Amino acid sequence: MGHGTKWMHYWKQLSAANVPAALIEKGQNRVIDASLTLIRERAKLKGELLRSLGGVKASTSLLGVPLGHNSSFLQGPAFAPPRIREAIWCGSTNSTTEEGKELNDPRVLTDVGDVPIQEIRDCGIDDDRLMNIISDSVKLVMEEDPLRPLVLGGDHSISFPVVRAVSEKLGGPVDILHLDAHPDIYDAFEGNKYSHASSFARIMEGGYARRLLQVGIRSITREGREQGKRFGVEQYEMRTFSRDRHILENLKLGEGVKGVYVSVDVDCLDPAFAPGVSHIEPGGLSFRDVLNILHNLQADIVAADVVEFNPQRDTVDGMTAMVAAKLVRELTAKISR
Amino acid sequence: MGHGTKWMHYWKQLSAANVPAALIEKGQNRVIDASLTLIRERAKLKGELLRSLGGVKASTSLLGVPLGHNSSFLQGPAFAPPRIREAIWCGSTNSTTEEGKELNDPRVLTDVGDVPIQEIRDCGIDDDRLMNIISDSVKLVMEEDPLRPLVLGGDHSISFPVVRAVSEKLGGPVDILHLDAHPDIYDAFEGNKYSHASSFARIMEGGYARRLLQVGIRSITREGREQGKRFGVEQYEMRTFSRDRHILENLKLGEGVKGVYVSVDVDCLDPAFAPGVSHIEPGGLSFRDVLNILHNLQADIVAADVVEFNPQRDTVDGMTAMVAAKLVRELTAKISR
Amino acid sequence: MGHGTKWMHYWKQLSAANVPAALIEKGQNRVIDASLTLIRERAKLKGELLRSLGGVKASTSLLGVPLGHNSSFLQGPAFAPPRIREAIWCGSTNSTTEEGKELNDPRVLTDVGDVPIQEIRDCGIDDDRLMNIISDSVKLVMEEDPLRPLVLGGDHSISFPVVRAVSEKLGGPVDILHLDAHPDIYDAFEGNKYSHASSFARIMEGGYARRLLQVGIRSITREGREQGKRFGVEQYEMRTFSRDRHILENLKLGEGVKGVYVSVDVDCLDPAFAPGVSHIEPGGLSFRDVLNILHNLQADIVAADVVEFNPQRDTVDGMTAMVAAKLVRELTAKISR
Amino acid sequence: MGHGTKWMHYWKQLSAANVPAALIEKGQNRVIDASLTLIRERAKLKGELLRSLGGVKASTSLLGVPLGHNSSFLQGPAFAPPRIREAIWCGSTNSTTEEGKELNDPRVLTDVGDVPIQEIRDCGIDDDRLMNIISDSVKLVMEEDPLRPLVLGGDHSISFPVVRAVSEKLGGPVDILHLDAHPDIYDAFEGNKYSHASSFARIMEGGYARRLLQVGIRSITREGREQGKRFGVEQYEMRTFSRDRHILENLKLGEGVKGVYVSVDVDCLDPAFAPGVSHIEPGGLSFRDVLNILHNLQADIVAADVVEFNPQRDTVDGMTAMVAAKLVRELTAKISR
Amino acid sequence: MGHGTKWMHYWKQLSAANVPAALIEKGQNRVIDASLTLIRERAKLKGELLRSLGGVKASTSLLGVPLGHNSSFLQGPAFAPPRIREAIWCGSTNSTTEEGKELNDPRVLTDVGDVPIQEIRDCGIDDDRLMNIISDSVKLVMEEDPLRPLVLGGDHSISFPVVRAVSEKLGGPVDILHLDAHPDIYDAFEGNKYSHASSFARIMEGGYARRLLQVGIRSITREGREQGKRFGVEQYEMRTFSRDRHILENLKLGEGVKGVYVSVDVDCLDPAFAPGVSHIEPGGLSFRDVLNILHNLQADIVAADVVEFNPQRDTVDGMTAMVAAKLVRELTAKISR
Amino acid sequence: MGHGTKWMHYWKQLSAANVPAALIEKGQNRVIDASLTLIRERAKLKGELLRSLGGVKASTSLLGVPLGHNSSFLQGPAFAPPRIREAIWCGSTNSTTEEGKELNDPRVLTDVGDVPIQEIRDCGIDDDRLMNIISDSVKLVMEEDPLRPLVLGGDHSISFPVVRAVSEKLGGPVDILHLDAHPDIYDAFEGNKYSHASSFARIMEGGYARRLLQVGIRSITREGREQGKRFGVEQYEMRTFSRDRHILENLKLGEGVKGVYVSVDVDCLDPAFAPGVSHIEPGGLSFRDVLNILHNLQADIVAADVVEFNPQRDTVDGMTAMVAAKLVRELTAKISR
Repeated sequence: MGHGTKWMHYWKQLSAANVPAALIEKGQNRVIDASLTLIRERAKLKGELLRSLGGVKASTSLLGVPLGHNSSFLQGPAFAPPRIREAIWCGSTNSTTEEGKELNDPRVLTDVGDVPIQEIRDCGIDDDRLMNIISDSVKLVMEEDPLRPLVLGGDHSISFPVVRAVSEKLGGPVDILHLDAHPDIYDAFEGNKYSHASSFARIMEGGYARRLLQVGIRSITREGREQGKRFGVEQYEMRTFSRDRHILENLKLGEGVKGVYVSVDVDCLDPAFAPGVSHIEPGGLSFRDVLNILHNLQADIVAADVVEFNPQRDTVDGMTAMVAAKLVRELTAKISR
Repeated sequence: MGHGTKWMHYWKQLSAANVPAALIEKGQNRVIDASLTLIRERAKLKGELLRSLGGVKASTSLLGVPLGHNSSFLQGPAFAPPRIREAIWCGSTNSTTEEGKELNDPRVLTDVGDVPIQEIRDCGIDDDRLMNIISDSVKLVMEEDPLRPLVLGGDHSISFPVVRAVSEKLGGPVDILHLDAHPDIYDAFEGNKYSHASSFARIMEGGYARRLLQVGIRSITREGREQGKRFGVEQYEMRTFSRDRHILENLKLGEGVKGVYVSVDVDCLDPAFAPGVSHIEPGGLSFRDVLNILHNLQADIVAADVVEFNPQRDTVDGMTAMVAAKLVRELTAKISR
Repeated sequence: MGHGTKWMHYWKQLSAANVPAALIEKGQNRVIDASLTLIRERAKLKGELLRSLGGVKASTSLLGVPLGHNSSFLQGPAFAPPRIREAIWCGSTNSTTEEGKELNDPRVLTDVGDVPIQEIRDCGIDDDRLMNIISDSVKLVMEEDPLRPLVLGGDHSISFPVVRAVSEKLGGPVDILHLDAHPDIYDAFEGNKYSHASSFARIMEGGYARRLLQVGIRSITREGREQGKRFGVEQYEMRTFSRDRHILENLKLGEGVKGVYVSVDVDCLDPAFAPGVSHIEPGGLSFRDVLNILHNLQADIVAADVVEFNPQRDTVDGMTAMVAAKLVRELTAKISR
Repeated sequence: MGHGTKWMHYWKQLSAANVPAALIEKGQNRVIDASLTLIRERAKLKGELLRSLGGVKASTSLLGVPLGHNSSFLQGPAFAPPRIREAIWCGSTNSTTEEGKELNDPRVLTDVGDVPIQEIRDCGIDDDRLMNIISDSVKLVMEEDPLRPLVLGGDHSISFPVVRAVSEKLGGPVDILHLDAHPDIYDAFEGNKYSHASSFARIMEGGYARRLLQVGIRSITREGREQGKRFGVEQYEMRTFSRDRHILENLKLGEGVKGVYVSVDVDCLDPAFAPGVSHIEPGGLSFRDVLNILHNLQADIVAADVVEFNPQRDTVDGMTAMVAAKLVRELTAKISR
Repeated sequence: MGHGTKWMHYWKQLSAANVPAALIEKGQNRVIDASLTLIRERAKLKGELLRSLGGVKASTSLLGVPLGHNSSFLQGPAFAPPRIREAIWCGSTNSTTEEGKELNDPRVLTDVGDVPIQEIRDCGIDDDRLMNIISDSVKLVMEEDPLRPLVLGGDHSISFPVVRAVSEKLGGPVDILHLDAHPDIYDAFEGNKYSHASSFARIMEGGYARRLLQVGIRSITREGREQGKRFGVEQYEMRTFSRDRHILENLKLGEGVKGVYVSVDVDCLDPAFAPGVSHIEPGGLSFRDVLNILHNLQADIVAADVVEFNPQRDTVDGMTAMVAAKLVRELTAKISR
Repeated sequence: MGHGTKWMHYWKQLSAANVPAALIEKGQNRVIDASLTLIRERAKLKGELLRSLGGVKASTSLLGVPLGHNSSFLQGPAFAPPRIREAIWCGSTNSTTEEGKELNDPRVLTDVGDVPIQEIRDCGIDDDRLMNIISDSVKLVMEEDPLRPLVLGGDHSISFPVVRAVSEKLGGPVDILHLDAHPDIYDAFEGNKYSHASSFARIMEGGYARRLLQVGIRSITREGREQGKRFGVEQYEMRTFSRDRHILENLKLGEGVKGVYVSVDVDCLDPAFAPGVSHIEPGGLSFRDVLNILHNLQADIVAADVVEFNPQRDTVDGMTAMVAAKLVRELTAKISR
């Protein structure tokens, strides 16, 4: 019996043993409340500090969402957030980004910690409620001006509740730049509407995004292309990247909407550059390709995520942790002002 | 700049920037309160369930303490708790312990999740307060009868606040069975009184243990032996294990005190059996040696810990995660009744 | 879609496309016939050679069965036979066994190659027929006196068709010495009666064995113990190995029956000695323990298998391949006279 | 004594022991006949199915040739075919190629399994006869219209018997697109005319190819360049790839000859993209470079091979298996119509 | 206590024990003299051979400097020189460079072995004297016309004593082409003026270089850019590499000065191409980018180094050793005439 | 062309080019003289220090012999000495041995560095002269009372010149305790009289040992047993270790001869405990078994070696380096008084 299915079994057992449903529900609600309170307090402390320091318009704050059970193949991304944090501050590099921002200035980067995903699921709380808790957590961060959430996944299923929260909080759709080997836009994958392969279908159905640009695509089925057309997605496939490169390195997004969201699936990179992912799909972007796209992007980035780093596959000297961390570092520099 | 020293720098900066100390202190206190509330609610829900099910005298509940910064060498044990949990439920094995307990029965095993160590430290909370939070968390679990805490480290520094809490909660000293390659009884290591090499000095000074048996010892200095004598520790070194084996496989502990605490440092095992540790010290126990000692131990185990598993060194097919998990499984079977 | 389920899908498609069933069935039968003919010819050539050389009573001949799809966890054992062969002849060791047999003497060791499992399954042939093909292959080897089959697995599901063939060919039950971490005696695992966890239930139900001794057991459920009792299995668990060691190192088997079969699951060894297995189960036998049992066994071994070596987990310098190969080498020395 | 030289020794021993030569020769012939019969039957079944389905002009069928003993350095490519097959159907990706072909449609891709190389050599059959068996196997596949063989190596020595068969079967030379770090055109390497470093010398001498384009070359000696001139080979070295890229991404081949053969040595890729090869030669093509060349190639591909993947060096999360599999997948899409 | 600090402790102890300072100093001087004599004799033998063979203007001679203690993060580069030598002659490749030079011609490549760094430090000799010994060793090689030193590091701190020796020996500054992820031009790093992060500050202060071109830079702080301006360094950052590529692939250096020095830090490469380095910094050069720069460089290269290869991080099939070796091979071809 | 054969080729070329033989010979002699002078000076400094400190009867001094070319399988042991030194002082353990000796006291442990094997061979010096240089180096250490050499291999071929030097220097034979998986007593291996498989044949023929006890043997051919009898070797095979254990843990050696030599081949250990060796031979000693034998040995150890650690196979967290280092540490404690 795997980790993923253990929980259901456990709580069915209790039910069968006639533990009162009200006892369980009340306890679950208290755990959810306490979880959100903890995130609120951490965000509040960071927000108060920045407002007290002053002079900051937008400041990146990390929020970890260690969720891997909606992956179709490996659940390792659940272990990613603490590894990315460690790599951000690893003694092998300094704290300056490529364009000169200082990450150890709290006005540039703070952290509100992780949503306690494993603990919440262990209390028998189902995916509908879990997705709401993730959305609520994102909103709690956004409430503390000038914090802007940079979410550390977790698998790609988390982008749906995160973008939903961003859009609801800002009061309208955003434009999304989505770097990935896969479109993640299937109606449902193996019956799971929250699958990491379906998050962008949920986002588009919800009206949370106006434009969705997908870059790095090289594993796409007929359904993936049809869903793309249905939702008006701009799909840039790797097959034509050498032709599209100029456009992608000169993007301007977000005008007329509430801002821009950037979602980076680490597997947008060729596995040569990022072997530590669940889905090895050769033929992807180089790390410099990704930075060229991000550095030249003209946009007001209101939130972002870096997802699908899988520490259990990161067997080459922790290289992919450094890759994920540098993506976070450079996105931070782009967001914070 | 390493991960460990980042925090101090950060909060000194704020101080220098004249952020009011009261603002920081109040925020920290709110974060601490919310952290403890969350642990209390999770423990309470599990306690209520078990009391509702009835018929349980003692039931193991996991409490993760992902703390690695008091290690003298590598900080990887901070990543251990989620990896151990995954290995406990790994599909490659079943849910029955060697002597027949069923782990997927909540009366045998529940989980109250992790103390959010990284988040607490990131808020500028120092080690004195952090150690108190760990002690408080352990007490919160013990308050929910019939839960007994089995703590997942983290480095060995956590045994001090855990044993302190156990002893204070029970109102007197316990007997300790401590399996380890090292005595961890130095007065202080490189000036750190909370070092993972000093936890048992703190425990003995505090009067939290009556007998302390150390088994597996094979890296010990003159000071280690002198401290052992000073505190009346029974040190069983590997040099004489073949002679001592009979005693150790027939231990009876805890009579006349409040119970027995078992602390298992994964490096008590020879690195052949558990390569995924920070301190490779050849010449240790076999896995079966450890099980023979534990299975035959006559004792009322009131709490326990499994510490110093380092996932960053666990490069052989996740073998050491499985080893740590089996130690947790067999200790669970020993504790729960 | 995984490798294992691809085949069904493929052949259903053909069916749906109205390809005549007779066309498929005839083709499948021709493939099966040709497969068995090839094994017969290879066995015949080796048998003729040995009979021509003369003076041999019993001679080991390797038969590979690269089948992994009946594993409950990982399918890697399908890749084992060529890796074991390579390790047997690896230049890092010589060709003499511990007790002095010369393996490069064809009177001691020959090879009849692999049953083409992947190709047979790819032709849409189901598990019932596949198991028969394995049994038939074993019988073809046994027909060529003085060849005795030493089967290279594959997962443990292959022991059922192999023992069935041995018993049917010899005309009565055998005694079995079975070294394993698991009893593999469940009625069915996840509905698969050919599961690698059920092979010994099939063997005992079929009456192919009189005595079944299981050694190294340390992962067993209530059902495993009950099935053991039901079939009169002598289960030696690792919990009591230090007590049972004397018996196990002085076994005499096979009197009054047609001979002795030895089945070695590589995971009978502690993972320290053999990490390259699908099921990491700490607390097992040392390699020397296994050799002591085998070297001292008094028996006429009529056939044997070495199973569950998983090359995809053999990440430590090919160590487990060398372990599996040495098990094959020492079993060969025991069989050939 | 290594694996490669064991066979000779073994059969000389038999000879010295006065086993009649006729006995051996007859047995060998029966084994060869049975081997070819088995391949014929598997090809026939697949051919009948496709003809019954109808509407297919050209359909890719995999033929594995697990031969590694003609390598000059490591023999690991002998283990490649089953690993490539597994990676083709790995659950981490889907069954659609980049340009939209569905691989799980048997009209696009079937499999006739492996030539039993190890078993044939173990029967004392020498390389001259072995090379003929490989050629015969390829012809057996081609006889079953509309099957076209995509051969899974093995080391590069197999390209000679494969191209010979293709040319003989079609009745004239082909054009060859050869992607490789090395020209493999030496007269003989260490005295072995069948060496993997000499296969294209054999092909050109035999008149089996009109044009030979070599792409990716970066390890070439004076003899390699002289042999290239002698045979009129078009050698595109990596030193000038940035200059040649436009030509290579717009190739049109095969006009006026019997078709085009594509031979992909996995080491044409830079080791960053494909570390799992025997010959690490930095400075090669990216995976996307290779796909750009193949996707844009205008040609009627009559057969192809993917060789020199070495699973024993594939230590990074099975990345090179996925690379070899994607090469096979995209070549399949190119061949099948 | 780490390796690096052991020496000091050791010699202080002796001092405290009243061992006469003169005894120590005399012994140290004799060890230094003998070390330099050994290097002189090896260089002399190689020089005599080449002069005897005649017709050589410039000939590359390897000099290993296994020094890692001035690294700020990992000391593994101390183990590099023997691994690079092994990879140069590895049987997986031939002895011809890309442009056709034969490395096994002693007129192209000889070796004067390693400076015994560990032994010198173990005798209590401090870094000031050690740096002088390195400079003296380089001069001893240069004295033997036509030898030109290609130094195998070691960490990057060695470039300072090497360039100093080259400039002093030639009687004036050189131009330097420096490929690296980092500028290594900090005034001092953590108080160490010999730090591997400060070597180019020492070189520029000493007036040993006229032009300094830095290529591949992508980890640079404000101080790094200011020091660059202060010393007139031409810093080519990766951020603008696609724009600068044309200039860098057409460099002409060294006119009007004593020649050109090339310093290649292996981490100039993206970690995808060279994971075996201490400082993983994604976004770097491809191996072909580096070769294109070196092959097209117009210059009289008087000496060179290849540094910062860390064998302890070279976990992917020894790939980075092959990378470092090919850098050495191609530089050798560039130097020798 | 491999590393090992490069040298011969190189010097034959010179010869063919008519470089005067006298020039070469004189140069070689100067290199040899300088090499020995350097070792003499390092030994002298350490000897003077200890005599100045006073009160030491016997003091261990490390001498590295990085020689791997006489191995029959892998040459990696040539890289061992610096790795062992690093592991001895690794920060993950302390500097006290199991029985309480302090290694950072120079009276217990000093180091005279490595014999420059690679450099000597690169100068065209053949194995006869090389073996003499090793013997001379050992004698230079022994001349400096109270130094006793503990030699770090290198492959096992070095034990012959080392023991020869010890015996010649002391003026008579020694007793040898030899821990190994193999007897290393073949007359010659593949024609190489200096092979690592023949060193003990050379030692016994030379009369350098009276008693030779071999422990851990489990890979031995008929010739190995016959040579054992011929030379009166006491061979303790693993097959009977459980029976022989009591004798081996209570050895008394060296009475009536000049002292005892201990030679530890790391592969005496089971590969579970020491995977980083060239010859994986399952079924060996545990690390504790080895320590029990060494700790209880009653003997005046005059010299020792630890050989055959292969860093290229040490892929598990550097575990085997720690194992080799602990063997060196515990032998040091045994030697020094």
